[in-house]
Amino acid sequence: PDDEGLLKLDYKGQFQLDYRDTGSGSGGDDDTMEFNFRRNRIALMGAYGNLGIYAQTEYTEDVNVGPFTVSDGSSNTFQMLDAQIRYKFNDAFRVRAGKFKYNLTRENLEACEKPLTLDRSVLIRAPYVSTRDKGVAVWGNLFNDIFQYRLDVMNGRTDSVSAPDSNFRYSGRAHVTFLDGEKGYGYKGTYMGKKKVITLGAAYSVEQDVAYADCTNETGAVDYKAWTVDLFAEYPIEGIGTFTLSTAYVDYDLDDAYQGADPDSGVIGVNGEKNGGYTKVAYMLPELPLQFFFRAENWSLVELDGVYDQEIDWYGGGFNYYFRGQNLKLTVEYSAVEFDTESSNYEDFDSLTAQLQVVF
Amino acid sequence: PDDEGLLKLDYKGQFQLDYRDTGSGSGGDDDTMEFNFRRNRIALMGAYGNLGIYAQTEYTEDVNVGPFTVSDGSSNTFQMLDAQIRYKFNDAFRVRAGKFKYNLTRENLEACEKPLTLDRSVLIRAPYVSTRDKGVAVWGNLFNDIFQYRLDVMNGRTDSVSAPDSNFRYSGRAHVTFLDGEKGYGYKGTYMGKKKVITLGAAYSVEQDVAYADCTNETGAVDYKAWTVDLFAEYPIEGIGTFTLSTAYVDYDLDDAYQGADPDSGVIGVNGEKNGGYTKVAYMLPELPLQFFFRAENWSLVELDGVYDQEIDWYGGGFNYYFRGQNLKLTVEYSAVEFDTESSNYEDFDSLTAQLQVVF
Amino acid sequence: PDDEGLLKLDYKGQFQLDYRDTGSGSGGDDDTMEFNFRRNRIALMGAYGNLGIYAQTEYTEDVNVGPFTVSDGSSNTFQMLDAQIRYKFNDAFRVRAGKFKYNLTRENLEACEKPLTLDRSVLIRAPYVSTRDKGVAVWGNLFNDIFQYRLDVMNGRTDSVSAPDSNFRYSGRAHVTFLDGEKGYGYKGTYMGKKKVITLGAAYSVEQDVAYADCTNETGAVDYKAWTVDLFAEYPIEGIGTFTLSTAYVDYDLDDAYQGADPDSGVIGVNGEKNGGYTKVAYMLPELPLQFFFRAENWSLVELDGVYDQEIDWYGGGFNYYFRGQNLKLTVEYSAVEFDTESSNYEDFDSLTAQLQVVF
Repeated sequence: PDDEGLLKLDYKGQFQLDYRDTGSGSGGDDDTMEFNFRRNRIALMGAYGNLGIYAQTEYTEDVNVGPFTVSDGSSNTFQMLDAQIRYKFNDAFRVRAGKFKYNLTRENLEACEKPLTLDRSVLIRAPYVSTRDKGVAVWGNLFNDIFQYRLDVMNGRTDSVSAPDSNFRYSGRAHVTFLDGEKGYGYKGTYMGKKKVITLGAAYSVEQDVAYADCTNETGAVDYKAWTVDLFAEYPIEGIGTFTLSTAYVDYDLDDAYQGADPDSGVIGVNGEKNGGYTKVAYMLPELPLQFFFRAENWSLVELDGVYDQEIDWYGGGFNYYFRGQNLKLTVEYSAVEFDTESSNYEDFDSLTAQLQVVF
Repeated sequence: PDDEGLLKLDYKGQFQLDYRDTGSGSGGDDDTMEFNFRRNRIALMGAYGNLGIYAQTEYTEDVNVGPFTVSDGSSNTFQMLDAQIRYKFNDAFRVRAGKFKYNLTRENLEACEKPLTLDRSVLIRAPYVSTRDKGVAVWGNLFNDIFQYRLDVMNGRTDSVSAPDSNFRYSGRAHVTFLDGEKGYGYKGTYMGKKKVITLGAAYSVEQDVAYADCTNETGAVDYKAWTVDLFAEYPIEGIGTFTLSTAYVDYDLDDAYQGADPDSGVIGVNGEKNGGYTKVAYMLPELPLQFFFRAENWSLVELDGVYDQEIDWYGGGFNYYFRGQNLKLTVEYSAVEFDTESSNYEDFDSLTAQLQVVF
Repeated sequence: PDDEGLLKLDYKGQFQLDYRDTGSGSGGDDDTMEFNFRRNRIALMGAYGNLGIYAQTEYTEDVNVGPFTVSDGSSNTFQMLDAQIRYKFNDAFRVRAGKFKYNLTRENLEACEKPLTLDRSVLIRAPYVSTRDKGVAVWGNLFNDIFQYRLDVMNGRTDSVSAPDSNFRYSGRAHVTFLDGEKGYGYKGTYMGKKKVITLGAAYSVEQDVAYADCTNETGAVDYKAWTVDLFAEYPIEGIGTFTLSTAYVDYDLDDAYQGADPDSGVIGVNGEKNGGYTKVAYMLPELPLQFFFRAENWSLVELDGVYDQEIDWYGGGFNYYFRGQNLKLTVEYSAVEFDTESSNYEDFDSLTAQLQVVF
């Protein structure tokens, strides 16, 4: 409000040098290198008593090295990534309305600038939505903050004309958290040795009549259902260092719509029907702000690029060097992606990424 | 300038839950529901002596429930909605240059975050422009601020190649205002009982050779001419409450270009040649920040979706609850739209919208 | 970082009234007039010890009067024009990473809000990049700041699939500067009488395998090589005024790819293979903040709109009036452009532009 409360402005950048061992040259088999931003954001935070707002822009420009494939990369988007009104009645009951992260997987809810490894999984996103959605959530901490609940109702798939019905998506998530505990809406991928945490979480999400198994005849409406469980543990030992373990499994179900006569394009592919998960481990030195990490993922997709029951293995390892905590950080990660069955657009590849993160 | 003057940053959001009684399902006749932002803005205001600047961004994303029809909604736009330089020589002579609201209807000039009802009319916009245009305006208050004049020269239709000529649009507006009076460039839809106001305004606008009545042969250049009159009255009575009446009529003329052999698409439809107006009434309780409102509109369009001389009646009613004035407001409005002749894309419909407004 | 360091927010606008003696009407030969922004920016600057960030947005909307041709102008872009992390080890060694101006021509490196004439040359941009690129640069001043060096590695052409190879572009620039000298990364077009400066600079840039001379057969990969020399001198004489001279030559070489069987579209045209330069002179009055300027350019393009060895002469003259230095400035410039051989889309034309600049 006018000259009241606190308004804060942040810049958040993740600038990368990306190397991919494929994608360029006349045959598409030569190495590709690119400087680009993974994240390029301006954030606005306001607080006034129990009322808060958070708005954040994101600019993505001309990305050539994509999660799985290399392109000429010309689409640029400037968007309002987050825009929320938050109100805290008390610790046990808070509301947020607007555009924000929906309550399903822990990794999607981990702050983008505070991951344990380079980034979250490129396969963890739910069908028909991005990392954020629009709607309303209530959440809170109970029983001395050991238990946290979250309930939201959000758009889910937004198409009104081509979808079977205009239904909202409902999600619920809960966790129990021990030792120092996690109390916020956004999780962190690591607390860099400043906190002892064990958190066990689970979530469920549903949207009815989300897509057609047969788009031509507009029949075979299927539901979306997803569930996930996750475990996060971080423990600093004095003089030894900090150990982190984070693992999760998620199942995205679309009633086997991919078997339909003319399934909606959203029920297959990277963000279609699938299940899988990740395991991340890390060790941070006791004296030096250097953290080594390793991550492994395995995903089963009902169909990708014409291949049914595709399996994807994703391995990555590297380190974070925290010059000034998360405000100035260098991350280097090497990763290898393997497909059970290679197809024309999805072949095994390796990547190497150096990233400089600044939050100001 | 460097470390001088005052610079202020605001976030302005209008987050809505929209219900429409049509638009979804395989026949398009099922109800549609959507969470979305009506407005999602970041504003920057600077003042330094008599010089001021105002810049404001707007982000619109994936709107399904439109003013008249429901779509799949995928176009996202991030734009600089306002960007102005303002200079005040004195109360009677001020200049602004840049992108800002042109001087025609009162309702378009009412601040977007300070309407009386949910929003301004979806039919009040002038042909070939949005709510803002680029150019220069002079304005001021005279005779003890009872009289206000505004003159502007702006782009109007911006097409250079497909328009008959590259002409500017000229508008003039004047009002007389009594009691506490209105002195600013932006009007308000309500003063929430803090001001006694009666304002009578009128405006005229013209742009020569704005479009062809026959685009194929590039003949039949027509002019754009518009005029409007409006009355706003708000009166708080102690212990009884605040009463508001606001009414206007506007006529947009395009020389009957719709009768041409191949009329430009902009001379017909929602923003083409038309006339009509609105009447809004409201009552705000004396003790509680609760305001009930009702609005009625009638518009005659020369052609809409193949129907000539289409008549649209638009009725809406609801309430505003001002938690913290316009900075935190809940508005609920129910509206019904009726067409004199229903067409394939324009059928009668009802809407219900709940909106949470935050200005921070 | 959180509540540390300095964060500054600026608005920078250049609002223009453009007149072009061609481009409108049914034959395209009538005058065209347009109000528009040449620049419309919000900038964010942060400094914390030796660390700095700079991020800047740019909004371009519906431009009809282009550098060479007039269009209907409908493409709007909102982009993050700059986004950099800067670190200063010492005066002789500084690093910046992110999106910023590459180190080639002086005029491109001159601050957009501090030119000598209305604007930089519309022909000075390097092939396959905009005015900015993404990458990393090191630079510094040596020998009592008389010598400056800059080295950068940047994306250059970003296309991965349609380019012969995914190579970076490497540039090096150096200058010697006398009297008060120039020490920053961004040059200025004028110091408005506050500095005595003579600077002599040169730069070289290379990117291997940047394009095909024969795209159909994906053969004939050519390299990009460019070099430039430039001289800037400004000298204020008390009671007489300030004199400015700025001149440069640049050569953009693409191995004569335009002679290939199916040359890449980027090797020809305004930003393809070419050479040329500019000479700017100015005189600023001693007592009044009024500066008269004149500029002349000559460019040789290998091919433009089907004309081989096209020559373009560009003359412009006008004045700057500095109400409040560069923070509030009026510029008026008249310019004439002549083609050695007129073609269907490129005919001689004259322009008149009045521009109001505000930096706040």
